[in-house]
Amino acid sequence: MDVSAVNSLSFEEFVEIFGNVVEKCPLVAAAVWSQRPFTSLGDIEAAIADFIDGLSDSGKEGILRCHPDLAGRDVQRGTLTPESQAEQSQAGLTQLEPEELAQIGALNAQYKQRFGFPFVICARMNDRPAILAQLSQRLGNKPAHELLGAIQEVKRICNLRLQALVRPILPAPAQLSSTPPKL
Amino acid sequence: MDVSAVNSLSFEEFVEIFGNVVEKCPLVAAAVWSQRPFTSLGDIEAAIADFIDGLSDSGKEGILRCHPDLAGRDVQRGTLTPESQAEQSQAGLTQLEPEELAQIGALNAQYKQRFGFPFVICARMNDRPAILAQLSQRLGNKPAHELLGAIQEVKRICNLRLQALVRPILPAPAQLSSTPPKL
Repeated sequence: MDVSAVNSLSFEEFVEIFGNVVEKCPLVAAAVWSQRPFTSLGDIEAAIADFIDGLSDSGKEGILRCHPDLAGRDVQRGTLTPESQAEQSQAGLTQLEPEELAQIGALNAQYKQRFGFPFVICARMNDRPAILAQLSQRLGNKPAHELLGAIQEVKRICNLRLQALVRPILPAPAQLSSTPPKL
Repeated sequence: MDVSAVNSLSFEEFVEIFGNVVEKCPLVAAAVWSQRPFTSLGDIEAAIADFIDGLSDSGKEGILRCHPDLAGRDVQRGTLTPESQAEQSQAGLTQLEPEELAQIGALNAQYKQRFGFPFVICARMNDRPAILAQLSQRLGNKPAHELLGAIQEVKRICNLRLQALVRPILPAPAQLSSTPPKL
């Protein structure tokens, strides 16, 4: 879909298509529909980032709490969203050995105890060892710092989910040639 | 469940139980979990109201856009949330005659065209004729006024959904008897 097609969507269609670019937070897509018309994929992304950045700290924590545990309960139950399923699967998190499951489960529990939200990372940009290393390392962060870092991961996940839905606008040849060349 | 039981819930449990007190916006419950401990049902309700009031106008519009049309597509498809199903059913909106369906559908379409969000009303506090009358009347409101009015309805719906989940705190008998009776 290109951006002009996005701009012609009703809010129902927009929420149906973009409702999970931020995991389980259709409210985000539903809110940014007000910012149409969008000029590019980056413009949609910026509207979403603005919405998230405008939330209070507890709102940002809320965004994170809507995410599933990596390799957690929803993986075992088969109740991940299709987007999360694809991402966790690609990172090898849906087929862990029992010892790995126990290790990641214990670290996740520590992380949630410390920060009050689950560990969120852009699984598509990391492999299994990198994810485990990050989880251990980020456990040592200060809470305010970790909140902002985790929200950055939400934006990375959102960017990749958007890329799967919207074609970036390329400059049209006619527009390029309409700018007089410097002589 | 009483409030002390609510306060002992993990965020996963809290979001699972309270995730739909604002229709399809688990983010709201996930955010207010940060405000624990709560002292009463009213305290939870106030935290939710504060979160909603703190959203930008487009955020408030987003909350409304997560609601289904009354007697709309989700009723026909059977895809309402359980809470919405019970509320619309009690107000008689799931068993309309074809003419009534056409009438409410046309008014809904006009409303969405005018305001950019669906008509939201606390169905439990209104019967079918009152809902139709309100829909016609509110169509004439100014957009800024209608946005605030519709958000009030969201809070009424939320209040009733909370009441179905949490017992209000009653003064304990020991406390009552500790107040010396007037003789």
